Amino acid sequence: MTGKFITFEGPDGAGKTTVMNNVVSQLVPLLGDRLLVTREPGGNNISEQIRTVILDKKNTDMDPRTEALLYSASRRQHLVKTIIPALEAGKLVLCDRFVDSSVAYQGAGREIGMNEVYQMNQFATEHVLPYKTLYFDIPVTVGLERIAKYRDKDAVDRLDVETQAFHERVHKGYLEIARNNPNRFIMIDARGQSMKLLVKLLI
Amino acid sequence: MTGKFITFEGPDGAGKTTVMNNVVSQLVPLLGDRLLVTREPGGNNISEQIRTVILDKKNTDMDPRTEALLYSASRRQHLVKTIIPALEAGKLVLCDRFVDSSVAYQGAGREIGMNEVYQMNQFATEHVLPYKTLYFDIPVTVGLERIAKYRDKDAVDRLDVETQAFHERVHKGYLEIARNNPNRFIMIDARGQSMKLLVKLLI
Repeated sequence: MTGKFITFEGPDGAGKTTVMNNVVSQLVPLLGDRLLVTREPGGNNISEQIRTVILDKKNTDMDPRTEALLYSASRRQHLVKTIIPALEAGKLVLCDRFVDSSVAYQGAGREIGMNEVYQMNQFATEHVLPYKTLYFDIPVTVGLERIAKYRDKDAVDRLDVETQAFHERVHKGYLEIARNNPNRFIMIDARGQSMKLLVKLLI
Repeated sequence: MTGKFITFEGPDGAGKTTVMNNVVSQLVPLLGDRLLVTREPGGNNISEQIRTVILDKKNTDMDPRTEALLYSASRRQHLVKTIIPALEAGKLVLCDRFVDSSVAYQGAGREIGMNEVYQMNQFATEHVLPYKTLYFDIPVTVGLERIAKYRDKDAVDRLDVETQAFHERVHKGYLEIARNNPNRFIMIDARGQSMKLLVKLLI
């Protein structure tokens, strides 16, 4: 595979999607169709169906390990049908969330255990790792305030309705992953970042 | 957990479901509500939704590992919401298919690797194993003939439309699991079995 696989990670409200959109608008004129911007389920019909089950507000009875397995299933399909073909075609692939999100959210947040979630995800990824991960860090309270302020209330899904303790665990989980992956993780203070620096990093 | 967890396994067309129904009809008068007969998705709403994605004939594009992860997710939910509560209540739980099916069908049949599928499933089961597994063995050609003869054509799902080579691999996979689990597996020749023996085994 000759392309580069780069992921965007961070707790809710870090604004990573906004930053990603800004970066993309600067990369498109430079790269054209050598750029793929994606996120799970990524327009993949099977992954979409899985996502519907995960996010259905009626499914309050979902066991945390069921949830983690469903994310992993959706990830597998997205990886095989979307990401790997793009990398094989030599593209730069920017992906909004990947395995690290599951390790932080299900492993740390839901307390399944970070290593266990990581290991199970290797079944899905067959050890495909991002070349770099841009991690947008933000204090939990600031992130939650941003969510409360900006997100459409009707768009709130099952995962948004979580306690502050949950979000604190997710944040700590991310910081631990960052410590364990110093070469892959690029830590960005989500309260003020330089677009120019990011664009330089990516091409 | 004071109950007993017993699974029924075997290749397609082994007639295990028919045998299971016969056994159950003899156990009900003896055990009443101390008996739970179940199978994935087991009336569990979330598992039902997952099952719909797995068996949808339109989803021909499904990667084998995605399929294995979805089975595992459905299994987890069924285990936690149905099987474990019944075992904790001291019931005899008879379950039509469990982890061995995934190891045989996805691990051997789809050639993901039996050990890899087994290991991934431990994330779902947290190492819960059946006390005994009744394995209904049948030569592949006999099993396939039975399916062709008895099954309603409209009821044929995505998994039935497989090559003979696939079913041969599944059968070999089952025999390997049986060899590796001599204390748990009870091998039954599905071409002629003794009901009385089975009922005795179960209570």
